[in-house]
Amino acid sequence: MSDLEALTLRYRRFSAERDWEKFHDPRSLILALMGEVGELAELYQWPGSQTESRPNPDSLLHERSAEEISDVLLYLIRLADVLGIDPIDAANRKLDAAEERFPVDQYLGEAPDKAQAP
Amino acid sequence: MSDLEALTLRYRRFSAERDWEKFHDPRSLILALMGEVGELAELYQWPGSQTESRPNPDSLLHERSAEEISDVLLYLIRLADVLGIDPIDAANRKLDAAEERFPVDQYLGEAPDKAQAP
Amino acid sequence: MSDLEALTLRYRRFSAERDWEKFHDPRSLILALMGEVGELAELYQWPGSQTESRPNPDSLLHERSAEEISDVLLYLIRLADVLGIDPIDAANRKLDAAEERFPVDQYLGEAPDKAQAP
Amino acid sequence: MSDLEALTLRYRRFSAERDWEKFHDPRSLILALMGEVGELAELYQWPGSQTESRPNPDSLLHERSAEEISDVLLYLIRLADVLGIDPIDAANRKLDAAEERFPVDQYLGEAPDKAQAP
Repeated sequence: MSDLEALTLRYRRFSAERDWEKFHDPRSLILALMGEVGELAELYQWPGSQTESRPNPDSLLHERSAEEISDVLLYLIRLADVLGIDPIDAANRKLDAAEERFPVDQYLGEAPDKAQAP
Repeated sequence: MSDLEALTLRYRRFSAERDWEKFHDPRSLILALMGEVGELAELYQWPGSQTESRPNPDSLLHERSAEEISDVLLYLIRLADVLGIDPIDAANRKLDAAEERFPVDQYLGEAPDKAQAP
Repeated sequence: MSDLEALTLRYRRFSAERDWEKFHDPRSLILALMGEVGELAELYQWPGSQTESRPNPDSLLHERSAEEISDVLLYLIRLADVLGIDPIDAANRKLDAAEERFPVDQYLGEAPDKAQAP
Repeated sequence: MSDLEALTLRYRRFSAERDWEKFHDPRSLILALMGEVGELAELYQWPGSQTESRPNPDSLLHERSAEEISDVLLYLIRLADVLGIDPIDAANRKLDAAEERFPVDQYLGEAPDKAQAP
């Protein structure tokens, strides 16, 4: 069993033990996920050397980032679990498609989004 | 090596091959993550039997959900990779804390957020 | 001068007085906006009679909603101001387009998003 | 009647004419708002001279920004309308509080969020 699967099962059991499964419909989980994404965004909202490149590993910002990334991950895998989706498998298929869609020689150093081109 | 680690390394290599690492600072990745969370939210934005409970596994909604969950996961693990954070490890520590903070006998069937209480 | 314009000018002056204009580039304001949208989502994340229909006007949830809606509005009009966009004018043009795109007789009682159709 | 009030009433009538009020509960509107915030974030997700400072007023990025800001504004005022909240009034109260909380002499040129301090 993979680490992500073990985490999914652990969270499933955590929810079942507290009878919280009734709160975990898709819409509720997406709203909860947004709450955590908002907390992650807040950490990086103002420009600065740490937010623009990467925070010092000993900083409070680094520690808080690990917490918020965890919260987003937990709600995301709970949503995948509730929907019966294998997120690792689905993400690998996405990367298969991205490799075809963005050939190395054509996109070297070029952001894929053309809407921002001048 | 875990499945999530393998996915992280695959995405790291994908980015390096295209010289896209320069786009992957924390703020850019969080904005990109928001784009994908927005697409996930859109799928479930209107009430209905499938959005409120869970979509039929053969539905377009189910397939689109797998894609959007993948996109969120990919930007999230790329962010963790750039910041030098192990998301599985951090999420397990979060669940350790949640188990202490929400004892089963005290929170059985009760949403943890009191702000919504009548 | 409209009320929204007056609010925009007040926030502009508030920012100038504190020399905070340097923090108000588009990416920073969007990240800050995401933080506030996250707080709004958190208030409504779990299902319940007040979150699903509408909260009692005397409830804490109602009061907190007014605060979070304000925070989203403030960052949104600050972003529009920085970009030189008139949001009222742009929104009226959007509604003009929506009236053409969704004729009453064709969309009566039908959610516009077909991705969710069974 | 203020411009924002007129816009709110126009959107209310637009919804009523299409019998779409049944879709406009708070959770649905917040999910829809998240979708539009995601589209706004996408426009600015990659670093560059226009995304970091401000786009040229004749650019596609500027035009797309006006559209996405409108979409966020429309769902936001629809939510406020459904909840019975006056957003201009609430935002002015927020600015009253911010003026007290961040005295000019103490916060001159200082981002209010200390979590990011080095």
